[in-house]
Amino acid sequence: MSKPKGFEKPIGVKDYLPHAVAKLRQVEHRVLACMDRWGYEQIVTPTMEYYDTVGVASATSDQKLFKLLNNRGTPLVLRSDMTAPIARVASSLLKDRALPLRLSYHANVFRAIEEEAGREAEFFQTGLELIGDAGAEADAEVVALAIASLQAAGVGRFKIALGHVGFLNGLLEEALPGQTDVQEELKACLLSRDYVGYRERLRTLAPDVPLRRELEDILRLRGGSEVCEQALRLSAGETARAAITHLCGIWEVLEAYGVCEHVLIDLTMIGDFSYYTGMTFEGYAADLGFPVVSGGRYDNLLRQLGRPAPATGFALKTTRILELLGDAQGEEPRRILIGYDEAGRADALAAAQRVRARGEIAVTERVAHWTDWEPGRAEAAFPLTYKGSVYAEALTFSSGAAAKGVQA
Amino acid sequence: MSKPKGFEKPIGVKDYLPHAVAKLRQVEHRVLACMDRWGYEQIVTPTMEYYDTVGVASATSDQKLFKLLNNRGTPLVLRSDMTAPIARVASSLLKDRALPLRLSYHANVFRAIEEEAGREAEFFQTGLELIGDAGAEADAEVVALAIASLQAAGVGRFKIALGHVGFLNGLLEEALPGQTDVQEELKACLLSRDYVGYRERLRTLAPDVPLRRELEDILRLRGGSEVCEQALRLSAGETARAAITHLCGIWEVLEAYGVCEHVLIDLTMIGDFSYYTGMTFEGYAADLGFPVVSGGRYDNLLRQLGRPAPATGFALKTTRILELLGDAQGEEPRRILIGYDEAGRADALAAAQRVRARGEIAVTERVAHWTDWEPGRAEAAFPLTYKGSVYAEALTFSSGAAAKGVQA
Repeated sequence: MSKPKGFEKPIGVKDYLPHAVAKLRQVEHRVLACMDRWGYEQIVTPTMEYYDTVGVASATSDQKLFKLLNNRGTPLVLRSDMTAPIARVASSLLKDRALPLRLSYHANVFRAIEEEAGREAEFFQTGLELIGDAGAEADAEVVALAIASLQAAGVGRFKIALGHVGFLNGLLEEALPGQTDVQEELKACLLSRDYVGYRERLRTLAPDVPLRRELEDILRLRGGSEVCEQALRLSAGETARAAITHLCGIWEVLEAYGVCEHVLIDLTMIGDFSYYTGMTFEGYAADLGFPVVSGGRYDNLLRQLGRPAPATGFALKTTRILELLGDAQGEEPRRILIGYDEAGRADALAAAQRVRARGEIAVTERVAHWTDWEPGRAEAAFPLTYKGSVYAEALTFSSGAAAKGVQA
Repeated sequence: MSKPKGFEKPIGVKDYLPHAVAKLRQVEHRVLACMDRWGYEQIVTPTMEYYDTVGVASATSDQKLFKLLNNRGTPLVLRSDMTAPIARVASSLLKDRALPLRLSYHANVFRAIEEEAGREAEFFQTGLELIGDAGAEADAEVVALAIASLQAAGVGRFKIALGHVGFLNGLLEEALPGQTDVQEELKACLLSRDYVGYRERLRTLAPDVPLRRELEDILRLRGGSEVCEQALRLSAGETARAAITHLCGIWEVLEAYGVCEHVLIDLTMIGDFSYYTGMTFEGYAADLGFPVVSGGRYDNLLRQLGRPAPATGFALKTTRILELLGDAQGEEPRRILIGYDEAGRADALAAAQRVRARGEIAVTERVAHWTDWEPGRAEAAFPLTYKGSVYAEALTFSSGAAAKGVQA
């Protein structure tokens, strides 16, 4: 390829202008404040991690990791999610703190991408991890807080699809014992929501298995608590039944939270992260084809990083959520442009300080020739300002004695 | 070296626990709010930039850049400052916007480091750029706003050393015409504040030059506006005199801002960025050996990225400033731990929602055996909570009818 030009940025990454930054900051602030109130405390970890530890532990496939070397030649990665870094912190800096730990974050993460339209190599996530509690109450807390976080972000209509990797894994192993290749192929269809492909492969790869009918039926297992009972009838295996029992427990707690109207049990939901071991969920907003939140339980990850403990959590896809939202809300501050000549300088700068001290915005401009100073230039002084009904006013100071606009 | 262990993070990078995050967020918020009020609008740019454009344009030496490749094999860098990326945005996305542009940012930047104690490979900067104004008023605005930003961050005592690269360059070229090697060696001494080395090199490298006395005298050129007059007597050259005249102009505007008590003219100050073309400054806090802010004018950088325009700006060394500050200020919210058993669950979760709705913090805990539930465990439920006088309370719900702690 030809050399990049000075004005180009790398493929798959984004500049956020003030308008977009205001939205991003508002979502970040509101979601973190919501997580705060549930007792989650915010941490910040480095952008780079060791490849051999956090890189390998992350659920991102190797070719999607951004790799680089430090000065010692040790391979590093740009973090591809925050779950593995937080597991590292829980195993090191926080190793003496009692469990459970409730941790939240807002961070940019990185995935090396093919040049597909709309895929991003760097994007923001706002999320949390609840470490040290294996119970259904902990999973339900995380799902309920994902719902509260979407609401805090301003996402109006959405649905959480809730599943459990143990159910599908158990049922597949019952039906196709030891045939992991076939199992993986079927799971890949479900992961990409290719139900036609799933049925076809069931027919071609597993024509005679005793549980074929049951494996087809899971496609219909979507709904409320009644799905749990239906699922229990499909499987006699211990793994699958334990998964369903746990899921029923989560549903019961979600009923106590009063949030079941947002939740749909979906046993085809297996989650796209290889480290999930239990409940998984994804949230879909109306009119968007991709999830705005995803999460799940990962009871083995922390062991890899040195402190065995069960854990559950989620990440909001903050960058995607921004696409759903209108402009940042809230009152626009007054904006005042103050023009002055040399004689009026001291008064003008003092007036600007008074404007700023009361929380409004002042821009000062030395005017060389008053004949060039146009009354309508206040708006032009804020070239990136949010659209809409912005109050802007121009004041002029041409000498100490004859200062106009004394209200500033 | 041996393989890193799971709990290790790369050398030179940091984890911020909730305590430190609260401080970081408070400084970020207060400084950006201050910049907002001066009419600076916030932008966010990608962590990765093309090596051949922004990487080369940045003032960071090549071996200090973190380099990596994208999937196409194009070399990228992790941004080492925000000035070059913002110059790229001004030349691309904002190319049709009228100048001046006032842009602010809070961002992490990266420098590959030797393993010296205390050097950081990733750190935060909060700063701004004023693009499109070549005047002394613009430079003074930037210095005055650096002072206001340090005050907003909570840095109590500090001094800004203000210089101009043109004065030293002009005087050196007058004294040692064409001897760029010697000039660079002398400048390197000044940059590292090695005044003894500077005098020695003057003696050995330039024993007979006519302006040797003048070159020695610049070490004494520190103070208020009187320094400008003294400097004018040292040099007859046009470059040096133009620099001093510009500096006097800045000082005059700083007087109108009423901030000269914080400023010291220091003509040995040349700034550590190769792209500086005019005024440069550094801010030192009491009791700290390194600058907490640095800035300057760079009138040639934007041309490199496609839009010739003068520019001036600064970056606060946010990570270092955190070391100067006490804990984040502000009222601590009430923290309430709510224990419940199955019968009390719905009431307990509803009570938690009421606590959160009034802006306080609630953590809920399913209690398996009330005999294990200790009255003093409310504090333990917030293991990372800021030290000090945190209000924490435990409420229990053991059944709908017999709910204790009804005030929640």
